[in-house]
Amino acid sequence: MFFASDNWAGAHPAINERLSKESTRFAAAYGSSDLDKSIEVRFNEIFEREVAVFFVATGTAANSLSLASIARPGGLTFCHSEAHIIEDECGAPDFFSGMRMVAVEGPDGKMLPENLVSRIARYPQDAIHHGRAAAISITQATEAGTVYTLDEIDAIAKIAKDNGLPLHMDGARFANALMALGCTPAEMTWKRGVDVLSFGGTKNGCWCAEAIVFFDPELAKDFAFLRKRTAQLFSKSRFIAAQFDAYLKDDLWLGLAGHANEMANRLRAGFGSLNSARLAWPTQANEVFAILPKSSAKAAQENGARFYDWLEPRDMPEKVSADEVLIRMVTSFATTEEDVDQFLSICASA
Amino acid sequence: MFFASDNWAGAHPAINERLSKESTRFAAAYGSSDLDKSIEVRFNEIFEREVAVFFVATGTAANSLSLASIARPGGLTFCHSEAHIIEDECGAPDFFSGMRMVAVEGPDGKMLPENLVSRIARYPQDAIHHGRAAAISITQATEAGTVYTLDEIDAIAKIAKDNGLPLHMDGARFANALMALGCTPAEMTWKRGVDVLSFGGTKNGCWCAEAIVFFDPELAKDFAFLRKRTAQLFSKSRFIAAQFDAYLKDDLWLGLAGHANEMANRLRAGFGSLNSARLAWPTQANEVFAILPKSSAKAAQENGARFYDWLEPRDMPEKVSADEVLIRMVTSFATTEEDVDQFLSICASA
Amino acid sequence: MFFASDNWAGAHPAINERLSKESTRFAAAYGSSDLDKSIEVRFNEIFEREVAVFFVATGTAANSLSLASIARPGGLTFCHSEAHIIEDECGAPDFFSGMRMVAVEGPDGKMLPENLVSRIARYPQDAIHHGRAAAISITQATEAGTVYTLDEIDAIAKIAKDNGLPLHMDGARFANALMALGCTPAEMTWKRGVDVLSFGGTKNGCWCAEAIVFFDPELAKDFAFLRKRTAQLFSKSRFIAAQFDAYLKDDLWLGLAGHANEMANRLRAGFGSLNSARLAWPTQANEVFAILPKSSAKAAQENGARFYDWLEPRDMPEKVSADEVLIRMVTSFATTEEDVDQFLSICASA
Amino acid sequence: MFFASDNWAGAHPAINERLSKESTRFAAAYGSSDLDKSIEVRFNEIFEREVAVFFVATGTAANSLSLASIARPGGLTFCHSEAHIIEDECGAPDFFSGMRMVAVEGPDGKMLPENLVSRIARYPQDAIHHGRAAAISITQATEAGTVYTLDEIDAIAKIAKDNGLPLHMDGARFANALMALGCTPAEMTWKRGVDVLSFGGTKNGCWCAEAIVFFDPELAKDFAFLRKRTAQLFSKSRFIAAQFDAYLKDDLWLGLAGHANEMANRLRAGFGSLNSARLAWPTQANEVFAILPKSSAKAAQENGARFYDWLEPRDMPEKVSADEVLIRMVTSFATTEEDVDQFLSICASA
Repeated sequence: MFFASDNWAGAHPAINERLSKESTRFAAAYGSSDLDKSIEVRFNEIFEREVAVFFVATGTAANSLSLASIARPGGLTFCHSEAHIIEDECGAPDFFSGMRMVAVEGPDGKMLPENLVSRIARYPQDAIHHGRAAAISITQATEAGTVYTLDEIDAIAKIAKDNGLPLHMDGARFANALMALGCTPAEMTWKRGVDVLSFGGTKNGCWCAEAIVFFDPELAKDFAFLRKRTAQLFSKSRFIAAQFDAYLKDDLWLGLAGHANEMANRLRAGFGSLNSARLAWPTQANEVFAILPKSSAKAAQENGARFYDWLEPRDMPEKVSADEVLIRMVTSFATTEEDVDQFLSICASA
Repeated sequence: MFFASDNWAGAHPAINERLSKESTRFAAAYGSSDLDKSIEVRFNEIFEREVAVFFVATGTAANSLSLASIARPGGLTFCHSEAHIIEDECGAPDFFSGMRMVAVEGPDGKMLPENLVSRIARYPQDAIHHGRAAAISITQATEAGTVYTLDEIDAIAKIAKDNGLPLHMDGARFANALMALGCTPAEMTWKRGVDVLSFGGTKNGCWCAEAIVFFDPELAKDFAFLRKRTAQLFSKSRFIAAQFDAYLKDDLWLGLAGHANEMANRLRAGFGSLNSARLAWPTQANEVFAILPKSSAKAAQENGARFYDWLEPRDMPEKVSADEVLIRMVTSFATTEEDVDQFLSICASA
Repeated sequence: MFFASDNWAGAHPAINERLSKESTRFAAAYGSSDLDKSIEVRFNEIFEREVAVFFVATGTAANSLSLASIARPGGLTFCHSEAHIIEDECGAPDFFSGMRMVAVEGPDGKMLPENLVSRIARYPQDAIHHGRAAAISITQATEAGTVYTLDEIDAIAKIAKDNGLPLHMDGARFANALMALGCTPAEMTWKRGVDVLSFGGTKNGCWCAEAIVFFDPELAKDFAFLRKRTAQLFSKSRFIAAQFDAYLKDDLWLGLAGHANEMANRLRAGFGSLNSARLAWPTQANEVFAILPKSSAKAAQENGARFYDWLEPRDMPEKVSADEVLIRMVTSFATTEEDVDQFLSICASA
Repeated sequence: MFFASDNWAGAHPAINERLSKESTRFAAAYGSSDLDKSIEVRFNEIFEREVAVFFVATGTAANSLSLASIARPGGLTFCHSEAHIIEDECGAPDFFSGMRMVAVEGPDGKMLPENLVSRIARYPQDAIHHGRAAAISITQATEAGTVYTLDEIDAIAKIAKDNGLPLHMDGARFANALMALGCTPAEMTWKRGVDVLSFGGTKNGCWCAEAIVFFDPELAKDFAFLRKRTAQLFSKSRFIAAQFDAYLKDDLWLGLAGHANEMANRLRAGFGSLNSARLAWPTQANEVFAILPKSSAKAAQENGARFYDWLEPRDMPEKVSADEVLIRMVTSFATTEEDVDQFLSICASA
């Protein structure tokens, strides 16, 4: 019953197999192998257009260097107040991009367009002292386990365009969002106005596979130097490429994310039939935020379940009472129905 | 005949196997798993003392964050004029540490102690305008394929101590140097006065396994934050740990490095028996710098050999004539006797 | 009627005179002249203890380098949500210190201790992902024209001490706060627990005189290098020293600040006797935030008055109606009673 | 007999007078006053074209932010091995620009064009590991007291153009060089191909007046934010403007530089008639590098002369014997014939 995070899961067998196969040969280093090149082509196909794609070591690196590549001196990046880039990356986005992250409030982990508009308005382009709006970043799926609809992305993208700001998407759980919406990668990104994407594979069955995708290759013209200078260029880069090769083949990635979402949905449904549990936010991808009696949570932990107690956000509509606890449960490709059902059954009996 | 670099090799089967085994289970993320912890203990054993060890994504990261952890404002790091940190990492050490790398000359890729002393003397501790000496970094094995003897490390370490400067060792090819000297890891590092070590596994049979080893854990007290903030903390960190687990088990790492050194030595010996080839520097680890007739190099390339033409350093004693070329050949765990012999045979007939 | 800012005023005649006198002689550069040294001694006397004092070019530099000198990797600085360091310095404090500024709410421009405590609690010292609490900064006088009482500073300092955090004071309007409280410099700073002070002279009659005062000289041990490296070391540093020489002589600085405060108080009293005006916050130093009918503000501007319309903070208790405007008026050593009375009279008749 | 540096001199009376006059009025802050604006126009006139001009606090800031404004990720700036930006600014140019300074050798403090060409050739535009050529910087007058001729600047500018690199000029002693060449500011800068200029006034009679001049205003489009973010925007900016107002009026600046050069020439001529003294480099501006008997230097010091012993550069053709010393003497607007003659007379009798 490992629900602590999707990054507690291992790696999918198909990805392992591909890595093993890759390990037996020689190939050019630093991203110039045939395999690296072929994966770049694969990204073009998946996104139905020419993109520039670069592998990096971590999701934090993907976000930070994405923002660094669109940064302007004195720039501000607007994101949700619970966004990973502002609260969970130890200031790495600020460090690499030289920008300040500005929190925008909104329910269910999503920026409310009117809040975004009014925050941006506080930082006009000639406001030397305050700094100037320079980028917008959305997380898809969000930190609250919800998903921006295509219309909601449109609304954010329109604000970006109206203000001349590039739009970044943190896609650490990109595949989960895609499966939730049932649309194509192109439809969820550049067709909406996304300029740069952090494309995550690690949480969905790879062991280390993160990429930055530039929909306008012009934005990437300095990126090779930026990546090297920030110590993110793997010498044996082709082992990242190999993971993506298996990940993207025959829609493996979509299948894995679909399974994870299904397991989250099974949890959600199970909680729905319990009187003692409530959900903090809608479950739309592979994260479930549940308010449980402390006794249930304790019983589950004693039976080996792993999950995180979650700090109650200031703007959460559901309030947590003194004998309750807010927990986050994350499902992954490796979560089983048995794990879910066992957890629910413990809650039911506690 | 892949001699371009040891990072063109794949990964050793034992390391692959260990990764596959690790992939099937759940475990805590961000370096807090049981496996991560057990590898930390393993490093203590290997170095015969308590050390603080941190995994990072690349050798450039290992060097840059090592230096960042010992940096002082306005600091200067002294290193050989051909060192990786000054010439091959796109300024990453400067970026992360905020220090300037100062080149010190010396033959065979090693800093000459008297040159080091006189360079340091130009930057006294109160020289606000010039910046102040803050660290020394040596590369073991060097970029010239040579190895500092223990006495030579002692000489550098004494200068470090006399000037109150911490000593860093770039051990991207640590195992190769160790096998060349036939000493223990402790004898080549902290027993000589090394404070921080970039411990590389990638070039010697891992696919991505780099660590920073602090011999004084006090130096590492802020490192966890530094690493996260610089986007070098893997979520599935245990897959680095797993590689080191296999790498360090039953002295696999030493065996692999020993093989690589042997292959380099076979090359060296082969060149020695050819009239047409000379060595630019002594071959002491797994790199051979050879001056060949252009015709030989061309013939080898046409037969599939891969190696790099090397820019002639200004202070190289052997001069390269107009119909010759300086090439670098690097051997690895995956180099075979057949590859070596085929290369030599082509040169002999060309 | 120049009420736009105290930095719209010129320089006091005594300061000019001292500068002129200084200009006729030769003296050592970069802060090592006899005059520089004598001013350092003067700061010891003023603060009744040994301090380390360094001149810098701007208030933004004073704040940024103060924070840089107490920064820790992954660190967070807690300050009021309207603080200059978070909203008015274009991210300079983040850039130089590598820290993120975290906004803490509170009425009248002052952090509410319970808010500070709860914000800090979100960032425990082992929270690698979130970053860790590393400093607290208060502004005295505040951006709202109010002044922390000694008890209020004590409350903040206790939180700092409880959490092991250094306490910085942005004293861009230090003298105004001092006159408001009627205490000594020592009583308002290190006797309360302040560790580092941005000591501003520019807004109070100098033309460019800003200093950083370290109450624990140990904190300043790297500062000379930090200042040079950040391009803040004046070659003719003694001209800053000369300004401070006149500024601090015979309590000139206190007299100038007292006059500015008195002029603000005269404005406040005048608004109090008008039915049409309200104050947004109490007037305690040399800034008045008034809510006026738009017609009054317009009439004043047409008669040559200069002031800034102010963006209504989200947490301001007084609400500004559609036909009103919130304005900021700042008085200085150069403000005259005539200016004040003329302004009030225009408002009365509008 | 103050020959330690031109920044040991005070400020010229005309500049003081202008500052005093400015001090009595109110004016807009942060560079938006009428006076600031009028000085910008003055720079257009002096350079005979539209330029973008920005004041900063120090020469180090002028150089660092000039380079920051033309920097590219992974960029390298080529400069003479004795340049201020590489040896005397404590790494500030590296810090602000993110570039590495690469030393180019050449006699008399000037880069030799063929050395520059060969250094640049080591860093081709796709050399991710080494970093790429991104800028060239020349110092005019040089650190050796010499001056690049217009032809020599042309030669450097051609190399810059051939390699697509912007050209920066460190003009800390711009006026001295101008007087030495007898040409116009335009002829020595943009007409030769200079893109950005550090225009120094401090060493030539101001007390703090440094500006960055962009000959292509497009290069300056982000500069206002860059300057604020790096804490270099003065609130009472008009006091810098006031200094430039007097400095540039009626060619005061040229007269002051001419006098300083004349005093250096008088020193040079005096040394020439002494058997015991030699010059290390030609005296072309306001610096004299003399090799004297230690006894002469000592006698001068005992009589109150101030100058710096100079570290012998590795490539200096004249060698300094054991009983000699290399000293640097700098003249300024405030140097008198009496000072010069007294110094020479001491040397003659020692």
